[in-house]
Amino acid sequence: MNDMNPAFLKASAMPDVQSTLDERALPIEQVGIRGVRHPLTIRSASGDFPSVGQFEMDVALPAHVKGTHMSRFMALLQKQAMAIDSTTVVAMVRDMLPLLDAKEGHVQFTYTHFVKKAAPVSGVESLMDYEVTWMARAKQNPAGKLDVELGLRAQVPVMSLCPCSKEISEFGAHNQRSHVTMDVMLDSQTKMTVEDLITAAESEASSELWGLLKRPDEKWVTEHSYSNPKFVEDLVRDVAGNLKADERIRSFVVEAENFESIHNHSAFARISHKK
Amino acid sequence: MNDMNPAFLKASAMPDVQSTLDERALPIEQVGIRGVRHPLTIRSASGDFPSVGQFEMDVALPAHVKGTHMSRFMALLQKQAMAIDSTTVVAMVRDMLPLLDAKEGHVQFTYTHFVKKAAPVSGVESLMDYEVTWMARAKQNPAGKLDVELGLRAQVPVMSLCPCSKEISEFGAHNQRSHVTMDVMLDSQTKMTVEDLITAAESEASSELWGLLKRPDEKWVTEHSYSNPKFVEDLVRDVAGNLKADERIRSFVVEAENFESIHNHSAFARISHKK
Amino acid sequence: MNDMNPAFLKASAMPDVQSTLDERALPIEQVGIRGVRHPLTIRSASGDFPSVGQFEMDVALPAHVKGTHMSRFMALLQKQAMAIDSTTVVAMVRDMLPLLDAKEGHVQFTYTHFVKKAAPVSGVESLMDYEVTWMARAKQNPAGKLDVELGLRAQVPVMSLCPCSKEISEFGAHNQRSHVTMDVMLDSQTKMTVEDLITAAESEASSELWGLLKRPDEKWVTEHSYSNPKFVEDLVRDVAGNLKADERIRSFVVEAENFESIHNHSAFARISHKK
Amino acid sequence: MNDMNPAFLKASAMPDVQSTLDERALPIEQVGIRGVRHPLTIRSASGDFPSVGQFEMDVALPAHVKGTHMSRFMALLQKQAMAIDSTTVVAMVRDMLPLLDAKEGHVQFTYTHFVKKAAPVSGVESLMDYEVTWMARAKQNPAGKLDVELGLRAQVPVMSLCPCSKEISEFGAHNQRSHVTMDVMLDSQTKMTVEDLITAAESEASSELWGLLKRPDEKWVTEHSYSNPKFVEDLVRDVAGNLKADERIRSFVVEAENFESIHNHSAFARISHKK
Repeated sequence: MNDMNPAFLKASAMPDVQSTLDERALPIEQVGIRGVRHPLTIRSASGDFPSVGQFEMDVALPAHVKGTHMSRFMALLQKQAMAIDSTTVVAMVRDMLPLLDAKEGHVQFTYTHFVKKAAPVSGVESLMDYEVTWMARAKQNPAGKLDVELGLRAQVPVMSLCPCSKEISEFGAHNQRSHVTMDVMLDSQTKMTVEDLITAAESEASSELWGLLKRPDEKWVTEHSYSNPKFVEDLVRDVAGNLKADERIRSFVVEAENFESIHNHSAFARISHKK
Repeated sequence: MNDMNPAFLKASAMPDVQSTLDERALPIEQVGIRGVRHPLTIRSASGDFPSVGQFEMDVALPAHVKGTHMSRFMALLQKQAMAIDSTTVVAMVRDMLPLLDAKEGHVQFTYTHFVKKAAPVSGVESLMDYEVTWMARAKQNPAGKLDVELGLRAQVPVMSLCPCSKEISEFGAHNQRSHVTMDVMLDSQTKMTVEDLITAAESEASSELWGLLKRPDEKWVTEHSYSNPKFVEDLVRDVAGNLKADERIRSFVVEAENFESIHNHSAFARISHKK
Repeated sequence: MNDMNPAFLKASAMPDVQSTLDERALPIEQVGIRGVRHPLTIRSASGDFPSVGQFEMDVALPAHVKGTHMSRFMALLQKQAMAIDSTTVVAMVRDMLPLLDAKEGHVQFTYTHFVKKAAPVSGVESLMDYEVTWMARAKQNPAGKLDVELGLRAQVPVMSLCPCSKEISEFGAHNQRSHVTMDVMLDSQTKMTVEDLITAAESEASSELWGLLKRPDEKWVTEHSYSNPKFVEDLVRDVAGNLKADERIRSFVVEAENFESIHNHSAFARISHKK
Repeated sequence: MNDMNPAFLKASAMPDVQSTLDERALPIEQVGIRGVRHPLTIRSASGDFPSVGQFEMDVALPAHVKGTHMSRFMALLQKQAMAIDSTTVVAMVRDMLPLLDAKEGHVQFTYTHFVKKAAPVSGVESLMDYEVTWMARAKQNPAGKLDVELGLRAQVPVMSLCPCSKEISEFGAHNQRSHVTMDVMLDSQTKMTVEDLITAAESEASSELWGLLKRPDEKWVTEHSYSNPKFVEDLVRDVAGNLKADERIRSFVVEAENFESIHNHSAFARISHKK
């Protein structure tokens, strides 16, 4: 698309169409790249795990500029060290703005997060996988400093067991896999980890999930979930309660979705909150 | 989940777990169903076409109520006449609130919209397909009336040809399929049609697309797009210009995404506007 | 791409690149179009329902021909009457071969099939949705006639309840949504309906699913499934038993996949059979 | 589901439902797990890259056995060292059979493969991503040894430029992203690498793709692809020619799919070959 090195550009004497004047008087809030996959190493309390991120990077473009420098986003990503924790996305957005000559910008990446978990009775260890997104949005304030917003999203698969089905039936109760998806805005110096956020959801489900369960574990999960029935409304409220109580979280949206085992559709519920 | 007919409920004497008192003091903004597929007939200027909708229906739940009546959403959908135009989604949300004992609610459905188009030179006719969503959100105001918001979203596949590639190359220019996605909020009595919104995007692309093109048409599309290069920034600005000028539209978000033919990722741009 | 009408071609005097001689000595087994959406009307025992098909159409191309006539596939689809039953796909492949100057070809389309079902206790009616594919493959035999193979595929969502979980636990048993996917080859004059094939799977699940269940129905489904536990191995074997016994079926592949409610992955099993 | 350690099982004295006798006389060709995500490290000529695999593991189950031991698949995966090359999948299937008491089995995993590439003019380096699958199928032969089949699949995104569009137009030619998907069966001691297979496709496209291109590179790609037009038929034939000529490949299926920039559907072609 475009080159990063002005000297190189001059040498090559190619027209720089993107830098011409634009007369439509329309600023663009976000312009950039999306769907770029890049290898990562997760640094977490559970250990270091290989993973792959799907990146989206964009900047705001003033009304008078025709186009951004698309290739610079990719150049930044290539230079990026691949060790990921909560500080990475903030560092990326800070590096991105000067490189793109921009005053506002946004970086996010979604990746598979792994946590090593011990089964509830046998203690046998296995990995659980979660879809996680880190997001940072930065804007130059009048004092010339950057205001940075930091966001974290985790989709946590859990088990939900229907209280109505249990109550009305002589035996059994329908249950199913559910997704609890939490979008939280954090202080940009937060000490919150992905694992902290996952726990806020797993602790409120009829049961959490594991990769590997032996038979005594399966018995425990079955009985524990039967003793702990939750509507989708209960699940979303109980997770929202946890997020409200956590001082590191400034605002959140939480959604629970049950892939109903008795229907071919989902039940869902959603709560948002700003402190 | 739950029954619609109170007499039937009493007769069956089953406990109604959802109606018990909830003490967590947390209202739920949206609770309902999602991912329900239902057959539709599109009524449009192009004619009537069969299609399938994917429905999401939800209501707000006050803090003191434990759960909503999930089965009533499905009951409403079963009764629904299947002819779809801009009035359908508003009628659905109006019917839904009393049935669910709710003061706020939201209905949306996404379906494949078809338009019969004539090729640019040969005039041969074929169908083009678009992903379209109608959305209505209703809330009882203090006067006891419903305030209704109506939204329409269309994803329009088009062709974009890169101005930079054309400018710097001796011959040729890379081009690709792009998606223009427009989310607009409308007056709930609007006369806007899906076709109107699609035109706002197709008219600004390097070229629009057709299902069936004969050779003279293919020549026309090739030459027309080469004479009409657009960056993703140009495309999003030119479509935004159309949406700004349309008095039926109260606010919008428009996004263009190019599935770059020279990369394995997308370039995208986004403009939002509230009048 | 290319034109259907030779007179028109001559008039336009455009070069016909596709018809030039190819010297790589490599015949192509399948060349055509994919991902075309077209409106349909399903004709079924449950009634007529609007739907949308996703089409794939292709022909075999001899070694000496450079390219096929892509636009003719689309032209055929535009002419196609939109009423769909088991005879449609065979009629389409028969029409396609002469139009494409081909001796072998294949047509398939996948669509959402709807069946009106009554809930097990209350009898309340609602639609269930299924992903269904019709496929026909035709080949000219030495006698100049067409040999036609007809295939039907249905993905049937059901409920499965784990026998091990039930056996080892004091109370409850984990259960989940499962997909039974059956691919069957039929006589091209078959009287088999989509509903017949769906029944072969639903009758063997821990429970079938419904769009709308009232409370007495939910009690029935919960208790019925608890009394009828099935491993993924049981499910695939019992459905395979039904398909083996059906004389209209010449060969089949059946697969069951459980979206395990205690894990974040699936268990699956597969049986194929040729009579 | 079930335990791996017989001593532990006896101690826990839980019923082992899976091991009971089955009387339906139906062997199951494949039973196992699917959709399990696990972290990987790719070892390649380009370097070591973190990635994530999506695993499918299954065994054949004789007619008289009711169920397999699902938890043992997961246990095997947990023990698995995470460095991946062509020998990994064969080692996994060899370990799996005795652990599952099985005579036939199959392992496959799909992951994002990365290759570091230099842009064609500037030489600037960036990563390209590819969807790759390794597959191994093993069966005990009468002599008590294992016969192992090894398969490799790569989906390679490339650029295709339409020869017809170029020929009939005064200027320009439509082009688009295409996928070349190759499924090859290899000797289980093969020296073939993923990079070798990718090259077989990229070398035949109108142009290969890069993550990062500077302006002189974009000029090169535009002009190179214009000078090198290919129908989907040309692309599939030219890649098939490469695969036929490679002695390490025993059989293959190759498919090319063009995401047409002038339509909202794909053109595709497919060749299979057994040596």
